Amino acid sequence: MSQDASTEGDLRNTGLSLKHDREWDYELDRIVEAVEERDATKVGLQFPEGLKRRGPAVADDLRALTDDDVTYMLSGQPCYGACDLDTYLMRRTDVFVHFGHSPMKESDKIIYVPLFSNVDPFPMMEDAREELPEEDVGLVTTAQHMNRFEEMREWLEAEGYTVHTRKGDDRLTHEGQVLGCNYASADIDADQVLYVGGGKFHPLGLAMEHPDKKVVIADPVNNVVTVADTEKFMKQRYGAVHRAMDAEKWGVIFCTKIGQGRWDMAEKIVNDNDNAYLITMDEVTPDRLRNFDMDAFVNTGCPRITTDDGPQFHKPMLTPGEYRIAVGDEPLDSLSFDTFHGTW
Amino acid sequence: MSQDASTEGDLRNTGLSLKHDREWDYELDRIVEAVEERDATKVGLQFPEGLKRRGPAVADDLRALTDDDVTYMLSGQPCYGACDLDTYLMRRTDVFVHFGHSPMKESDKIIYVPLFSNVDPFPMMEDAREELPEEDVGLVTTAQHMNRFEEMREWLEAEGYTVHTRKGDDRLTHEGQVLGCNYASADIDADQVLYVGGGKFHPLGLAMEHPDKKVVIADPVNNVVTVADTEKFMKQRYGAVHRAMDAEKWGVIFCTKIGQGRWDMAEKIVNDNDNAYLITMDEVTPDRLRNFDMDAFVNTGCPRITTDDGPQFHKPMLTPGEYRIAVGDEPLDSLSFDTFHGTW
Repeated sequence: MSQDASTEGDLRNTGLSLKHDREWDYELDRIVEAVEERDATKVGLQFPEGLKRRGPAVADDLRALTDDDVTYMLSGQPCYGACDLDTYLMRRTDVFVHFGHSPMKESDKIIYVPLFSNVDPFPMMEDAREELPEEDVGLVTTAQHMNRFEEMREWLEAEGYTVHTRKGDDRLTHEGQVLGCNYASADIDADQVLYVGGGKFHPLGLAMEHPDKKVVIADPVNNVVTVADTEKFMKQRYGAVHRAMDAEKWGVIFCTKIGQGRWDMAEKIVNDNDNAYLITMDEVTPDRLRNFDMDAFVNTGCPRITTDDGPQFHKPMLTPGEYRIAVGDEPLDSLSFDTFHGTW
Repeated sequence: MSQDASTEGDLRNTGLSLKHDREWDYELDRIVEAVEERDATKVGLQFPEGLKRRGPAVADDLRALTDDDVTYMLSGQPCYGACDLDTYLMRRTDVFVHFGHSPMKESDKIIYVPLFSNVDPFPMMEDAREELPEEDVGLVTTAQHMNRFEEMREWLEAEGYTVHTRKGDDRLTHEGQVLGCNYASADIDADQVLYVGGGKFHPLGLAMEHPDKKVVIADPVNNVVTVADTEKFMKQRYGAVHRAMDAEKWGVIFCTKIGQGRWDMAEKIVNDNDNAYLITMDEVTPDRLRNFDMDAFVNTGCPRITTDDGPQFHKPMLTPGEYRIAVGDEPLDSLSFDTFHGTW
């Protein structure tokens, strides 16, 4: 198995993990300034999974730069995005720093440190050219490559492409940015889209959301160019919907993570279906759902848990749209990728 | 492997799980009354792991007894005790019901439904007699057998025993009650203690806390009588302490569960040791700690995670007392079981 194939469908592998010994700019000055300005004695630090092991060294650096009476607390909660703030730690610290994601919602309390990558995207973009035969091309990337987005655009234009980009909606910070649950920045007038970034997590979501477009992956982290292929995932989706069609008892999951709650959607399903039960949790895992004797589940939280981790659950796990197909409210050909819009 | 042996050291198996088709009294009338009195529209229901699959049926029964506009929400968070309230759900519901544990702290918001067992304890108590040769005997049990505690005492007295019982401290509701983290009710003047209840989880903790006493287990759930044997656990504890003696970098876990926080203890360790890092989380799991590159961990949260799940972690995991031994502040022979006192 190639290094590349192993990143498919692994939620922890979104391009931030430590494949290379990359250097990140933790923006310590900005954090120290906030600590001093607020006379902070408690500072919370939250890192995504792939960077958690850098946390103690960052805490050491900060300790050396601030007063002895400042206590640094590392969040040990799983973290998969800016939707996934450690609100417990945030509420109990004077300064709360969230690393590795761009702001989903600005707040005086939170310092977002995006951690821009220093890998060179152009060799892989060069290799990606032969997969992009048309003149019009969309360009998208993730938060950590945003610092070079304009350079990427200029490079493509110099190669003769007409580059289409847009800022999606208010869930996104930057022009051309994609999230695992939001590909509105690819709603552009081109049949081919170039994704620059690590791993297959984002481009597979993009290809599921935009099945009519060719999604080319220039991955400067794993040094590979591929074309996103959603066939395996789509087969799994149709399989899960079909298996759920006989379900009587439904577990309806309401996710309690700050940026993943879709209450109205969850409540409507439960109100309309006497055999649906509302279950609340933060981490949606196979272990936790095994405790409930349901025939199928519908997840109103992170859609990537449903599509990427779906086969690990003991019963079919559907998105809200797939649920409507399974219960006969919508036709099978309405199946589409589940996305999140707005903040909280 | 006997059914009995399989319950050892499994935190999910504390006697509430569905081994027999037992009937529980969910005290629906008391819940319905609270719903009506408070004009509740949102009701949260939290069950311990072994009873979670009964949740939907309880919700059905409550739906039939209350207005259509009441929404019932089942907590999908893991739950191992009254220390482990789903505070998210509690804060967002008009009535919050916690099943299966006795109150650790009374509150108008929370309805505690203890779920008393209907199994007959006396056949196993009869069998336990031959392991209890002395006249003085301590008697302890768990919340779900409390409804027959006085009958048990009378039965033992009729058999000629002098029965010693006490109410521990304010973490406990009842005379003679034990928790996984608190055995103050066994601080009595007898060298032998009879534990009546399901599983080995509680009596093993009791025997570790009171190594000078013989702990006899009358288990009416699994129909077995045994004597608690802590040798395996104690060897693991000494092994973990020895392996941690070379540790440089320490992860200090502060548990964010409402009844498991020992902030002063965690903060003191971090303040006194420059190589200690504070890590906050609710569920303390091997997966979550693997993200941190530490040489050893000290867990200020639930001591049973440390003693019962300890070997599953990738690095030595110590209680706060064991930490003091490992860093040389206390002698090896001070090793003792870690207990929790008070509420929050």
